[in-house]
Amino acid sequence: METWDAIRTRRKLDEYAPGQIEEEKLTRILEAGRRAPSSRNQQRWHFVLVRDRDQLRRLSRVWRGAAHIADAPAAIGVVAPHSDDPRESASINFDLGQAVMSMMIAAADLGIGTRHAAVEDYDLAAEILDLPEGLRLTWMFGLGFPGDRPLSPVQNPDRRDFDDVVHEERW
Amino acid sequence: METWDAIRTRRKLDEYAPGQIEEEKLTRILEAGRRAPSSRNQQRWHFVLVRDRDQLRRLSRVWRGAAHIADAPAAIGVVAPHSDDPRESASINFDLGQAVMSMMIAAADLGIGTRHAAVEDYDLAAEILDLPEGLRLTWMFGLGFPGDRPLSPVQNPDRRDFDDVVHEERW
Repeated sequence: METWDAIRTRRKLDEYAPGQIEEEKLTRILEAGRRAPSSRNQQRWHFVLVRDRDQLRRLSRVWRGAAHIADAPAAIGVVAPHSDDPRESASINFDLGQAVMSMMIAAADLGIGTRHAAVEDYDLAAEILDLPEGLRLTWMFGLGFPGDRPLSPVQNPDRRDFDDVVHEERW
Repeated sequence: METWDAIRTRRKLDEYAPGQIEEEKLTRILEAGRRAPSSRNQQRWHFVLVRDRDQLRRLSRVWRGAAHIADAPAAIGVVAPHSDDPRESASINFDLGQAVMSMMIAAADLGIGTRHAAVEDYDLAAEILDLPEGLRLTWMFGLGFPGDRPLSPVQNPDRRDFDDVVHEERW
């Protein structure tokens, strides 16, 4: 798919269709994340691909908004160090956003929809994923073919107007 | 360009070629950012497109690693609310990472290279951009045609091995 189409096609999936995602597609999506840029190329991330139904169900309980993970054919958990330093935390989370966006655009390109989930219960998530001390399941997202409506470029995204968002030279 | 090519083509530009970027290309890049997903669709961002050489020179002083902005044909400053709440700050920065990645992939698709810059002197940046109270120039990046070597898919990115980054089901 053309890049501009993939960027415009990515949207929040409301419903996952049943059916597995091909292995090579998941590999490509994860590879897009692996290639993402990061501050001083630190790559402070691990990606945990989850497809086991019981494991997906357990993960769906780490946040009230994560229930949809229980129905997804797959999820990718983004694991990163936790920092109490505001500047380092901002940098880590910015980099994780870059990696996740890269994976979501790669997924849209393959006809695969995605949906974010935040994490609230870090301890429960760490227990489910057997995470080492100091690492957190920081974000995750579900992946699947669309069960709601086909994926195609969104013509009028629900976003603030271009002129409200974009400034020239200064405020 | 095919999406997978654009994702693999994006890399840090070492040198900007002189010459302006066409208006419609900049518009498309900014539109990619405007369309990015965000927590509860809050879109906590403004994008300031800077092309004036004096303004670019001033911005190059907001961080020791931002000197390259002085040589860029254009830069996009990402302005966002600052929060002292760790969870909100993480969420804002994650969303900004998503918006920036989307813009960088859109740029790569158009043959335009990009390069990140962080910000250290928020007060100076706010003065340069006339920012209202409570908003910060949080991140920025330069854009330009490559002055170093042509943009093409990176075959062997300088990244940790796939098997080191990716886990299945659990740690």
